[in-house]
Amino acid sequence: MIIVMKQGAKKEQIDLVIRGVKEAGLDPRPLHGTERTVIAVIGDERKLEKDKFKALTGVEKVMEVLKPYKLASKEGKHKSKVRVGDIVIGGERVIVIGGPCSVESEEQIIAIAKEVKKAGAHLLRGGAFKPRTGPYDFQGLGEAGLKMLAKARAATGLGIVTEVLDPRNVELVAKYADVLQIGTRNMQNYALLKEAGKQRKPVLLKRGMWATYKEFLLAAEYIMSQGNREVILCERGIRTFETHTRNTLDITAVPVLHELTHLPVVVDPSHATGIRSLVAPCARAAIAAGADGLTIETHTHPEKSVSDASQTISTEEFIQLMKELKAIAKAVGREL
Amino acid sequence: MIIVMKQGAKKEQIDLVIRGVKEAGLDPRPLHGTERTVIAVIGDERKLEKDKFKALTGVEKVMEVLKPYKLASKEGKHKSKVRVGDIVIGGERVIVIGGPCSVESEEQIIAIAKEVKKAGAHLLRGGAFKPRTGPYDFQGLGEAGLKMLAKARAATGLGIVTEVLDPRNVELVAKYADVLQIGTRNMQNYALLKEAGKQRKPVLLKRGMWATYKEFLLAAEYIMSQGNREVILCERGIRTFETHTRNTLDITAVPVLHELTHLPVVVDPSHATGIRSLVAPCARAAIAAGADGLTIETHTHPEKSVSDASQTISTEEFIQLMKELKAIAKAVGREL
Amino acid sequence: MIIVMKQGAKKEQIDLVIRGVKEAGLDPRPLHGTERTVIAVIGDERKLEKDKFKALTGVEKVMEVLKPYKLASKEGKHKSKVRVGDIVIGGERVIVIGGPCSVESEEQIIAIAKEVKKAGAHLLRGGAFKPRTGPYDFQGLGEAGLKMLAKARAATGLGIVTEVLDPRNVELVAKYADVLQIGTRNMQNYALLKEAGKQRKPVLLKRGMWATYKEFLLAAEYIMSQGNREVILCERGIRTFETHTRNTLDITAVPVLHELTHLPVVVDPSHATGIRSLVAPCARAAIAAGADGLTIETHTHPEKSVSDASQTISTEEFIQLMKELKAIAKAVGREL
Amino acid sequence: MIIVMKQGAKKEQIDLVIRGVKEAGLDPRPLHGTERTVIAVIGDERKLEKDKFKALTGVEKVMEVLKPYKLASKEGKHKSKVRVGDIVIGGERVIVIGGPCSVESEEQIIAIAKEVKKAGAHLLRGGAFKPRTGPYDFQGLGEAGLKMLAKARAATGLGIVTEVLDPRNVELVAKYADVLQIGTRNMQNYALLKEAGKQRKPVLLKRGMWATYKEFLLAAEYIMSQGNREVILCERGIRTFETHTRNTLDITAVPVLHELTHLPVVVDPSHATGIRSLVAPCARAAIAAGADGLTIETHTHPEKSVSDASQTISTEEFIQLMKELKAIAKAVGREL
Repeated sequence: MIIVMKQGAKKEQIDLVIRGVKEAGLDPRPLHGTERTVIAVIGDERKLEKDKFKALTGVEKVMEVLKPYKLASKEGKHKSKVRVGDIVIGGERVIVIGGPCSVESEEQIIAIAKEVKKAGAHLLRGGAFKPRTGPYDFQGLGEAGLKMLAKARAATGLGIVTEVLDPRNVELVAKYADVLQIGTRNMQNYALLKEAGKQRKPVLLKRGMWATYKEFLLAAEYIMSQGNREVILCERGIRTFETHTRNTLDITAVPVLHELTHLPVVVDPSHATGIRSLVAPCARAAIAAGADGLTIETHTHPEKSVSDASQTISTEEFIQLMKELKAIAKAVGREL
Repeated sequence: MIIVMKQGAKKEQIDLVIRGVKEAGLDPRPLHGTERTVIAVIGDERKLEKDKFKALTGVEKVMEVLKPYKLASKEGKHKSKVRVGDIVIGGERVIVIGGPCSVESEEQIIAIAKEVKKAGAHLLRGGAFKPRTGPYDFQGLGEAGLKMLAKARAATGLGIVTEVLDPRNVELVAKYADVLQIGTRNMQNYALLKEAGKQRKPVLLKRGMWATYKEFLLAAEYIMSQGNREVILCERGIRTFETHTRNTLDITAVPVLHELTHLPVVVDPSHATGIRSLVAPCARAAIAAGADGLTIETHTHPEKSVSDASQTISTEEFIQLMKELKAIAKAVGREL
Repeated sequence: MIIVMKQGAKKEQIDLVIRGVKEAGLDPRPLHGTERTVIAVIGDERKLEKDKFKALTGVEKVMEVLKPYKLASKEGKHKSKVRVGDIVIGGERVIVIGGPCSVESEEQIIAIAKEVKKAGAHLLRGGAFKPRTGPYDFQGLGEAGLKMLAKARAATGLGIVTEVLDPRNVELVAKYADVLQIGTRNMQNYALLKEAGKQRKPVLLKRGMWATYKEFLLAAEYIMSQGNREVILCERGIRTFETHTRNTLDITAVPVLHELTHLPVVVDPSHATGIRSLVAPCARAAIAAGADGLTIETHTHPEKSVSDASQTISTEEFIQLMKELKAIAKAVGREL
Repeated sequence: MIIVMKQGAKKEQIDLVIRGVKEAGLDPRPLHGTERTVIAVIGDERKLEKDKFKALTGVEKVMEVLKPYKLASKEGKHKSKVRVGDIVIGGERVIVIGGPCSVESEEQIIAIAKEVKKAGAHLLRGGAFKPRTGPYDFQGLGEAGLKMLAKARAATGLGIVTEVLDPRNVELVAKYADVLQIGTRNMQNYALLKEAGKQRKPVLLKRGMWATYKEFLLAAEYIMSQGNREVILCERGIRTFETHTRNTLDITAVPVLHELTHLPVVVDPSHATGIRSLVAPCARAAIAAGADGLTIETHTHPEKSVSDASQTISTEEFIQLMKELKAIAKAVGREL
């Protein structure tokens, strides 16, 4: 940590900072520059409350040197592989999670599961508990939907990725799901993160649409600090001034996260764009940028989808996209 | 709802849209323009899934005419007053909620409560359950903290505003609190909103730092649709590209929300700015813009605060600020 | 400047950084921490190209200690006063610049000038050269418009604030104007900033809607470095995800800029909001936050305004607003 | 255009809108809904000042149906090809523009030109006039730099892409350059756009870091409306809340712009990311998303680059990247 004093800070103000650092068991090194004094702190700054030093009179700013997350941090670690049955996320193979926004009926989810399986998808997605912006929108089938997902798994062998919204439902969802999904709106729902951290099922954590990389990794750290190290990060678009698309896909998140963390990184082009025709080019871009996988909303009849209809591609489009993605994966030295 | 067809959309595509509108029980009015066809929909468009029409081939865009929230909407309603004991929020008087970020001890919270009461504050704030970005940060005292808040109320008569993070704790928090606070990170935590909606205690709902006015009002609508109409909206800064301050206070939210909704609107200059010296000017601006109240982090010893130290003002500064705010309130025809 | 090396950076990488700092005539102080090495640089870091050090292998990040602007910086300076005839901007008195978006005709501008003068405005605004988003929109009357502004000044005594778009027109505009306005889109138009810096007329510099405080002050520094120290900063809204309003007024910019710079700060609530009904509350907020003045679009017949009609208030509304602003100014210990 | 009246708008307010539409020569079609009246406008709405209608009492909002740009619009047009000598931008072949941020010396630019040519680049970039955020930074060699670029062209046959900052220099730059570059800060510098529009040289127009797609295309329309139809659009990152990278690459801009306009679209991963290690993955993503080309900062000795050192890749890295890009281009059915 580097503590920058204001120009003209008084000696007693500087001394107070130095004393505070020492009291926390770290080693302060004051540097008296031409315009101001800077105090470098040697030791594990994570033990210091950065904010407390910012609050002291005479302090201009406090700059972090170390990253505030440890378990999620890349430093000195190999890239992690998360296993879902036979499927490995974070290895050589790029994996694709396909399926509808919402589970609508047993027939619907089984039919779609069979189609995406045939097209080469590795996991099945589908929401039983739905976070909807408006209270009057369809909220999902709940446990009945989870049971339909389990039947689709039985029918196809595909592992299930499904969202959990409420800490009270984590156990229930974990009973049926192979991967627990935590959605963008809940990235800082700490009660939910902690419950997910107590499970021994992989968690697909979506980036909050407002979240910096640091905050995203701190959310992963919340889960990991509870004992569950099986976290898959998912970039799904951030909120910017451009409203033509639902969100703005931050494609650079893929290589940045690979530099900052050992966790696998997948991309959701459906929610990022919100527009069906943009899903395929953004999916291709994600693989080219080094993503470990994709999650894509697919439906046998997109226009009849009860939710997210306008960003859902048809299974025919999905089959075509899988071919394109195989070519891209090969071009970056991977397979799909 | 207005459905704009693409240039060159085929007759059968247009007919499909028209049929869809009719099936939903509304009245479609196609208008054949010089460049494209537009279909105006007469009736309550809230019954239509806008997204389904966007998903139809040949549709370029779908534009909403009506607002998707009804209970929260201003239209035809008087401004609401929310009562907390003798205190009325949304009336002539501007109200101020003062207190520390976190409850730290019985002595601390009672001492601060007495100071803010003396300075003229109307309600006491203080967190017992704390949403912290990092898992290794102080997470609050939990129920013990709630009990200390209750003692501070007994000592001063000030009603208590405190945050609830977990739907499982809503009843517990409601047992002690006079106002349930839902924080920015939980604005779209629907499980929590629904539980808060089942209580008969006022809810202070903070704007998500990524949330549009529409999404903010839809979050209020979630609470209201469960039966609890006592919602107070709180603007607390949004996330923008400017990182000098913690967030960017959207002062315009105050008059905009007064135009869109009948609910009272308060402002949190402490979290919006994150910098102690900016709290007073932003608090004054909020009252000048028409806010119904303020929530301000105050501590007898800000630099010793266990959280948010750098944005917390001292009780001396609070006393001075209250004087300034009285003058501003008077200048806009209100009192404090 | 603080140079943070990567964990495990090699000795020769650290030595290369140290040598680079020495070659630039500054004093490097390496600090070997528990996890990584940090090199503090003593001396005027503005002489260093920060980017060159970031480019060196083994460097993780480079953090600035000093501000990159000097002339615009507050440090050690009193608040500046900019004089326009008898009017002082940055003193005790809050000043108001009123007038239409565009000069439309001699009659129009003189009529409006008389009205705003009567209401107590201190300067007259009006565009002769207009920056319009679309090429087919009205582009302003050019020099003819400037002449009309001069006539309005002759008729009322009000000094003229008008925009210049093109470095080739700076002298022309300066011939007629009392204050040269540089608009938001041109905040980083360096050719224009430099020409304005060669004039001896005050410059009203609007913040780029994408610009950080640092970039805003560096733009002012461009003008000042050419010899013209008479710069007035104008906050006029930044671009955020919220599109209900034209931009988001960053009210906190007012106290922040007062901390960072000695230059006067005014606010433009008309462009910030783009909505007539929001101009008055935001204008009041600006004065309450400590702004030195306001610039407000006013028209005798707003709905007939050739540009910005929806954000322009009527002269009746302007008169009412001036009364409200006087009360707010008084409440913060100033006058208007 | 669709004009939505407020709930309870009076008949005379509605009539005033209808009259206004008629006076502009268009055909108003009022629709009286259950909650409010909507007036659909038949005809070329580009003739209407949308803002004037928003300004009328009783109007709630005005929604555009047609796009405000015509020349740049895709509708009914084939994709454009822009020719620079033998090089075709917008055809089957993906083109790469390589070279340093700034021209530093004759030796430097010729050496780099030879390297990028050998690696397969199609055009040479290099700045002679530099837009720098701070006035004390290196501002470029000016005409001397242009002459060095011409020598590099003579030595390699590569066409020259170089930036113009000042409308007074457009002719001068056009004398030496094959493509005029207009930078992000100048995207709404209308004086410059108009001058570039009078030339008969292709223009590489970079997206303003704050600009929506609509504003970007309106800036292109400014150039095209002056007679110059040879515009190449360049996505180079937008400003968001994420500051780890210099800007956020909006990869989705590539397929969106291909839907909205016939103009070719290239991507600048160097400025978008600002970090050397992120250039290659983002460049690959751009081609995978369908970009017609790339512009990449390359230097024989990046760490000695006088500007943008930290985002400039070495010529060795450039050679490696070109191989990867060829594979991606092939995977999407193109060549490089």
